Amino acid sequence: MEKVFATIITIGDELLIGQVIDTNSAFIAQELNKAGILVRHRLAVGDNWEDIWEALDTESRHASLIIITGGLGPTADDITKPLLCEYFGGKMIVDQPTLDHVTHIFEQILKRPMIERNAKQAEVPDVCTVLKNEKGTAPGMLFQKEGRIYVSLPGVPHEMKWLMTNQVIPRLPQYFQTGFVEHRTLLTAGVGESFLAEMIREIEEALPAHIKLAYLPNYGMVRLRLSAFGWDKQKLSEEIEAQFAIFKNAVKEYLVTDQDIPMEQVVAQLLLARGKTLATAESCTGGYIAHLLTSHPGASAYYQGSVVSYANEIKQRVLSVSADTLATDGAVSEATVQQMAGAVLKIMQTDYAIAVSGVMGPDGGTKEKPVGMVWIAVASRETTKTQLFSFRFDRRRNIELTATNALNLLRIFILQNH
Amino acid sequence: MEKVFATIITIGDELLIGQVIDTNSAFIAQELNKAGILVRHRLAVGDNWEDIWEALDTESRHASLIIITGGLGPTADDITKPLLCEYFGGKMIVDQPTLDHVTHIFEQILKRPMIERNAKQAEVPDVCTVLKNEKGTAPGMLFQKEGRIYVSLPGVPHEMKWLMTNQVIPRLPQYFQTGFVEHRTLLTAGVGESFLAEMIREIEEALPAHIKLAYLPNYGMVRLRLSAFGWDKQKLSEEIEAQFAIFKNAVKEYLVTDQDIPMEQVVAQLLLARGKTLATAESCTGGYIAHLLTSHPGASAYYQGSVVSYANEIKQRVLSVSADTLATDGAVSEATVQQMAGAVLKIMQTDYAIAVSGVMGPDGGTKEKPVGMVWIAVASRETTKTQLFSFRFDRRRNIELTATNALNLLRIFILQNH
Repeated sequence: MEKVFATIITIGDELLIGQVIDTNSAFIAQELNKAGILVRHRLAVGDNWEDIWEALDTESRHASLIIITGGLGPTADDITKPLLCEYFGGKMIVDQPTLDHVTHIFEQILKRPMIERNAKQAEVPDVCTVLKNEKGTAPGMLFQKEGRIYVSLPGVPHEMKWLMTNQVIPRLPQYFQTGFVEHRTLLTAGVGESFLAEMIREIEEALPAHIKLAYLPNYGMVRLRLSAFGWDKQKLSEEIEAQFAIFKNAVKEYLVTDQDIPMEQVVAQLLLARGKTLATAESCTGGYIAHLLTSHPGASAYYQGSVVSYANEIKQRVLSVSADTLATDGAVSEATVQQMAGAVLKIMQTDYAIAVSGVMGPDGGTKEKPVGMVWIAVASRETTKTQLFSFRFDRRRNIELTATNALNLLRIFILQNH
Repeated sequence: MEKVFATIITIGDELLIGQVIDTNSAFIAQELNKAGILVRHRLAVGDNWEDIWEALDTESRHASLIIITGGLGPTADDITKPLLCEYFGGKMIVDQPTLDHVTHIFEQILKRPMIERNAKQAEVPDVCTVLKNEKGTAPGMLFQKEGRIYVSLPGVPHEMKWLMTNQVIPRLPQYFQTGFVEHRTLLTAGVGESFLAEMIREIEEALPAHIKLAYLPNYGMVRLRLSAFGWDKQKLSEEIEAQFAIFKNAVKEYLVTDQDIPMEQVVAQLLLARGKTLATAESCTGGYIAHLLTSHPGASAYYQGSVVSYANEIKQRVLSVSADTLATDGAVSEATVQQMAGAVLKIMQTDYAIAVSGVMGPDGGTKEKPVGMVWIAVASRETTKTQLFSFRFDRRRNIELTATNALNLLRIFILQNH
């Protein structure tokens, strides 16, 4: 048996001028991995006949499965479908089931007249297997050529995802005999990448050849990932689990979680397990902590809500921060976040609260309170703990760091049985 | 003169297993575009000697500038630097200025002992120009080979950004005589992609060859982008402006903005111009609208804050939604968002308010109130307007759509002089 390699080709000038960020490729890569297929290349090319053609030629030499996304919309900048038709030596025909489906969408769901441009979406090369797209008008297409499989999917993320999950992945076993890929990821906090590397050097060097370790540093937190490939699923799982246990033990002092989940989910699991609730009072993060917590289903079981007190008068009027404190210590101060945390705990009647206030930049910094300075408070009904942070990145990154560190502070606070 | 093409190569297994989303490439592409350089390919390859080597060979045939990111950290999974050394036929030497810089960072900033692994970051191939990295320990490197320029940058986003802006872009005129790339983007709402395409078909067909139109649909909103390339900056600007004016006029009925900015900035500009303020009351979006508004500097001039009332009791206690309404109409109802908007307007003492309540999924839907059902209210002190929406995507997408549509509703509300 041989490893099966795939290439993901994304089509669109918007990727080459940096107007949009490619999130599709990450999803496709994850799904292929779960199916035991290794992604060799991810390639973005423009809406350009020669470049797409050449990419197909080149990547055919690197991979036996080529997934293409983008370039299938109803508008004129799309050249992918005619190109695929020519590349695979077919001619365009109307696919009646697709035409019925498109007609149904316009008549029954969108309730808009269907124009010729929409009907054209039902035209496909006669050499492809049509993959019905239940989430949109552009169908997926599967081609076979010289022992390789090519799949073309629309670039709209939820349509692409539905097609990958329901039409592409289930078909792969027809074409490929795949092995198994397994990953294990843990998250550490409070230790630098180099130090961590020294700590685990010996166990890293003792890893068997089919298990690889990777470091994914992220400003004060480092994710460690073990990846393994093999043909015997049971054996592979056992091997990677055994290795993972060794790594977990070696870094236990700094271990946040042994799951591949973000910090807010670590906190959510802690709160859930203890039946506790949380509220937040956010100034500089402007609702970002609330957004992180509520972006996962089921948040209502432990999260009550937030007062985003972006303006100082809201800190005073809604969160009862005293005028004295704001005048003397200022909005970015230990006293302010203490009062914010205390107030939101009462308002929301929760077990725990987080409060943050800081200078995110690029403007608003002073000599005493420079950009990146942040006070964070975490509180229970009995006690409040504060910490001063100093970040040195851009606004967006400072907001993210403040949120993650606030959540980490609460995590430690809860674990210390406050 | 010839067009200058670039390729961006990102190195890292995490990109191929879908563990992280590549945001670096978008930034690099934007900066190269501004410098008149066209990105031909974006390629992601694994931490793997053969694949990186082959990518360098292949992309050298497609581009005269190759930007490589990733693979320069202090840990053992990094093979990029020795590979580059061999590829360009050099030998590794210690770069004294880099060693001084790394030493300074550890002694003065991190205040941690420097270990051998860190010192190794000062080793570079003797055939490169070292690009000093003021934001971190891994230097950038510039190589020349057979008329092509290769630049290797660390993958940590803020380090890569600083190096691109301060070390790479300013050096490009030494090596390339570039043309000019210009883009103009407008945003429409309330019209489908196909319909829009029909509306502007004739003017699209009349575009000169060096100006391209692209459609970037995004669920109910469509961005149109004109891109032009030329050698005479003044002439190019005039041509694209003239074409852009024609397109703007053709879609004026649906035009949201003629700038390449997101919806929250369109609303921010409206509020700023009128000296008005805004507060939000968010249930299902969980602070995401607040986050969008506060992710841009200067938000405090028009944004006061948010009450994120994720739990029903917070709607009742903090936002004074009546127990009757919650019992009879439920949390996802017109009456609830009306009361939420009215309350937050009073609490925050603003000119305008947005309130949202809905079912984001994947759980919590019922026959009467299915996943994707959202009530949105926008209010001034005089009047409140409500609208019922129905989205049909996943949780994250439903949250984003609710936020964007709420902001669009407020935009229209303000323009109607409420």
